[in-house]
Amino acid sequence: MFKITKPTLLLDRNICIANIGKMANKALKHNVELIPHFKTHQSAQVGEWFKEAGVRAITVTSVKMAKYFAQHGWKDITIAFPVNVLEINKINELAKLVDLKIFVNSKETAAILKQQLRTPVKFYIEIDVGDGRSGVNAEDFSAIAKILEVTKDSVLEFLGFYTHAGHTYNAVSPKEVEAIFGEVLEKLRSVKRHFRKIYPNLKLALGDTPSCSIMENFIEIDSIHPGNFVFYDLVQHGIGANTFEEIAICLAVPMVAVHPERQEVVVYSGWVHQGKDSLLDVDGNNYYGVVVNLEGEKWTAPIPNAKVIKVSQEHGVIDLPSKVIDGLKIGDVLGILPVHACATAVMMGEFWTLEGERLGMMPK
Amino acid sequence: MFKITKPTLLLDRNICIANIGKMANKALKHNVELIPHFKTHQSAQVGEWFKEAGVRAITVTSVKMAKYFAQHGWKDITIAFPVNVLEINKINELAKLVDLKIFVNSKETAAILKQQLRTPVKFYIEIDVGDGRSGVNAEDFSAIAKILEVTKDSVLEFLGFYTHAGHTYNAVSPKEVEAIFGEVLEKLRSVKRHFRKIYPNLKLALGDTPSCSIMENFIEIDSIHPGNFVFYDLVQHGIGANTFEEIAICLAVPMVAVHPERQEVVVYSGWVHQGKDSLLDVDGNNYYGVVVNLEGEKWTAPIPNAKVIKVSQEHGVIDLPSKVIDGLKIGDVLGILPVHACATAVMMGEFWTLEGERLGMMPK
Repeated sequence: MFKITKPTLLLDRNICIANIGKMANKALKHNVELIPHFKTHQSAQVGEWFKEAGVRAITVTSVKMAKYFAQHGWKDITIAFPVNVLEINKINELAKLVDLKIFVNSKETAAILKQQLRTPVKFYIEIDVGDGRSGVNAEDFSAIAKILEVTKDSVLEFLGFYTHAGHTYNAVSPKEVEAIFGEVLEKLRSVKRHFRKIYPNLKLALGDTPSCSIMENFIEIDSIHPGNFVFYDLVQHGIGANTFEEIAICLAVPMVAVHPERQEVVVYSGWVHQGKDSLLDVDGNNYYGVVVNLEGEKWTAPIPNAKVIKVSQEHGVIDLPSKVIDGLKIGDVLGILPVHACATAVMMGEFWTLEGERLGMMPK
Repeated sequence: MFKITKPTLLLDRNICIANIGKMANKALKHNVELIPHFKTHQSAQVGEWFKEAGVRAITVTSVKMAKYFAQHGWKDITIAFPVNVLEINKINELAKLVDLKIFVNSKETAAILKQQLRTPVKFYIEIDVGDGRSGVNAEDFSAIAKILEVTKDSVLEFLGFYTHAGHTYNAVSPKEVEAIFGEVLEKLRSVKRHFRKIYPNLKLALGDTPSCSIMENFIEIDSIHPGNFVFYDLVQHGIGANTFEEIAICLAVPMVAVHPERQEVVVYSGWVHQGKDSLLDVDGNNYYGVVVNLEGEKWTAPIPNAKVIKVSQEHGVIDLPSKVIDGLKIGDVLGILPVHACATAVMMGEFWTLEGERLGMMPK
């Protein structure tokens, strides 16, 4: 491994490309288009690996991110976020450059856009299938009809319905994901049945990594938009979406103190590096990552019973079995598998491949 | 207010300068030196306001941050973190430029530094007064003596003891802070009594915003190193360290959806903007900020019963009373007072004064 002197986010290119390939093959097999969400990696260079896997359209979460990827050659971009009408000027600029798809979730938003959009733009109506975050309630056909009433004969072209079943993230087993996904599909199909009478070509789009990783039934779905699967992480592992071996990023962190009396070591890895996401262990205590060794040109399987138990701004405290601590010394570098890959990536702002190549991300 | 189109971190210069002035006066009154921690704002321009208040030495949390502030004219810098020996080259560079103080918390670290440091450097031994994060246990005189044995007659000059009583952050009242602070002082004085026989000029340094804001007894303390007080936040407010009126930053966020049926609105403000810190409300539910209006050239007092109840990567969900929702429309901009100012500042990476001036921060 190349020389590491400070917290460094390692990316295993082989694992990452395999994750991309697996999802691309699954989409092909089920005859859905993979339109991956790029909010997890936010990296033009990781994006190239998707191009090599045949992906031609992407999903992002902000106008800024759409602009970044447009600058890196992407021509078909969905902004999967209730459109922020205050950014209308940037949206107008972007719509001239790429095949832009946005979310229009209310008649009020539709009215503003109809008046202020200068270029034709396609749109999804986001459907809330039970997550309770954003979108029109799946049962509220009247609200949907009102949006379509406003957008009729305008620069806004209706594409179909998009949903993010974020509540699958609370599942603790593939079986639970399956149950949630069953309800999601039923709701989406019901909306589709109702509106395809007027819009026979409307599409159904959905994106959440647990469903897209675990499920094998995508009948009537036109496109899938998962993001996290590019790296996977401990949250997804807990749901059953991936194995440890499929986690593609690892935070390398210098050890700065050894406390054998507490069975703990202190590492240079705080929430500014890894993020603040945590999981609960069997005793109900929070932990912020599992610990691996860095050996040769890669990282190892998790060290049994080794966990990050505390993070502050730049400190991390790791609980380790005594016999592991005995083999460690100040200046050693340990690895942390992330609880939430999206957060760790955002915090670090760059990746380093195991070969020592830096991969940039969208600037702040 | 200037035109806001996306999440924007507002900084009220008057409140901030008043917070700085108040702490500087308190230090003067108690005859301790204020050596503020700059990890909260990480901004050269905010640093200038400290210079105007007479501050001449600062505290930071990383070699990188030390370098950034050295480039902006600071000549006396304490890195309040167990020294990362892997960055020895940068430390050697820095020690040539500024009066550098570091933390040496073990004899192993001391031995490495003794061998690899090229320039004289002063050091504190960090004392763990009960927080259980980093530093030598306050009772472990033997470990302290071993460090001093290694550093004797070396380029390492012993300054004294430094402590961060991080456990005051768990206090819920000034009385609790007072109780913890009493124990902290007792432990520090006990260490001092023991070692001043050999080191008569040793200093005691401590830094945590709750203690420094609330306490009025700093006998035997030489310097205070609080950071968060520059902005304050809801955590500190909950402890009793500040009023709402003393919170100097506010995240301005566009509203992208209104859900009267749920008494909720969706704003463009996720954990990539505000951070993921939360507090518990009276019903035991997490919340991620209180909500204010932006009016004229400033923000208002908190809207009663208005809270950020959910954040994902870029979405925030705000719970609001119906009568407030009735007055809102898509494209309005709301304000969020931060749970944890350090986190919101790091996430946003820049500030905007109410006059529309951008204040930069240390680059990623």
